Amino acid sequence: MIILGIDPGYATIGYAVLEHEKAKNLLVTCGVLKTESNVEFPKRLEKIFKDSADLFLIHNPDVTAVESLYFQNNQKTAMAVAHARGVLVLAAQVAKVPIFEYTPLQVKVAMTGCGRAKKNQVMEMAQKSLNLDFLPKPDDAADAIAIAVCHAGRLTTEYQSHD
Amino acid sequence: MIILGIDPGYATIGYAVLEHEKAKNLLVTCGVLKTESNVEFPKRLEKIFKDSADLFLIHNPDVTAVESLYFQNNQKTAMAVAHARGVLVLAAQVAKVPIFEYTPLQVKVAMTGCGRAKKNQVMEMAQKSLNLDFLPKPDDAADAIAIAVCHAGRLTTEYQSHD
Repeated sequence: MIILGIDPGYATIGYAVLEHEKAKNLLVTCGVLKTESNVEFPKRLEKIFKDSADLFLIHNPDVTAVESLYFQNNQKTAMAVAHARGVLVLAAQVAKVPIFEYTPLQVKVAMTGCGRAKKNQVMEMAQKSLNLDFLPKPDDAADAIAIAVCHAGRLTTEYQSHD
Repeated sequence: MIILGIDPGYATIGYAVLEHEKAKNLLVTCGVLKTESNVEFPKRLEKIFKDSADLFLIHNPDVTAVESLYFQNNQKTAMAVAHARGVLVLAAQVAKVPIFEYTPLQVKVAMTGCGRAKKNQVMEMAQKSLNLDFLPKPDDAADAIAIAVCHAGRLTTEYQSHD
């Protein structure tokens, strides 16, 4: 099963493609989609839609796991990210790929067993679970890996429950 | 010039098509796009995208005026509306229609001259400016009319400034 993890944003969107077979995960690729701050917002949304549609087309994921948004102090940023996330979810829906949502807390707990884990702890666990000899960069791509691994972990739990 | 006014939402989206020539406005049509609450959110976003794309195709507006979002107490609702608004803005951009944004305050001031005007006062002014012998229903369609008239008012001001 191919899982596409997405860390939503409007300037930088992290993504990670994970191959998951039973309890094993393999990182196929990860990276970021970017939009430029000097471009009008509707055009940035269009770029996000086209670039994410390409991701779905190229990697043909079975599912996508997208981090949900939590309340942010900066209301303007939160609203802009929500606009972009709407477009990302639309791209998944148009590609007919089932969408799973995880809160940042769910990702932390799934990766470390602790909701108060720090970012670097989450990253280290993601690195460990994928047997990577490097820490994925930038942060947005690493976050997307954690989201994809979180979803894979849920599948693993399901497999185990059937043993 | 054809102006498409949009009052964003995810359950109900108001729209209004206005023909604006110099200082005169004619209401071509108005109505609402709807999505059902028992449908999954990604599918609702897809319906909003398709239905709004149809609006742009059928009415071929020169511009669209979309109300911007303001902070709401219900964070969950605000986020959902922002997701849908992202999709609406994307549909306008894909249709290559220039997008203008107005805050609820700007609409109120444009329509009544007063930022503290009540909803029914805004509606009455919209009705008056269009010489309608009825008060448009539902509220979402009436809101979209006010947004379109607000944009037309801005154009009228521009014409006047060139006289």
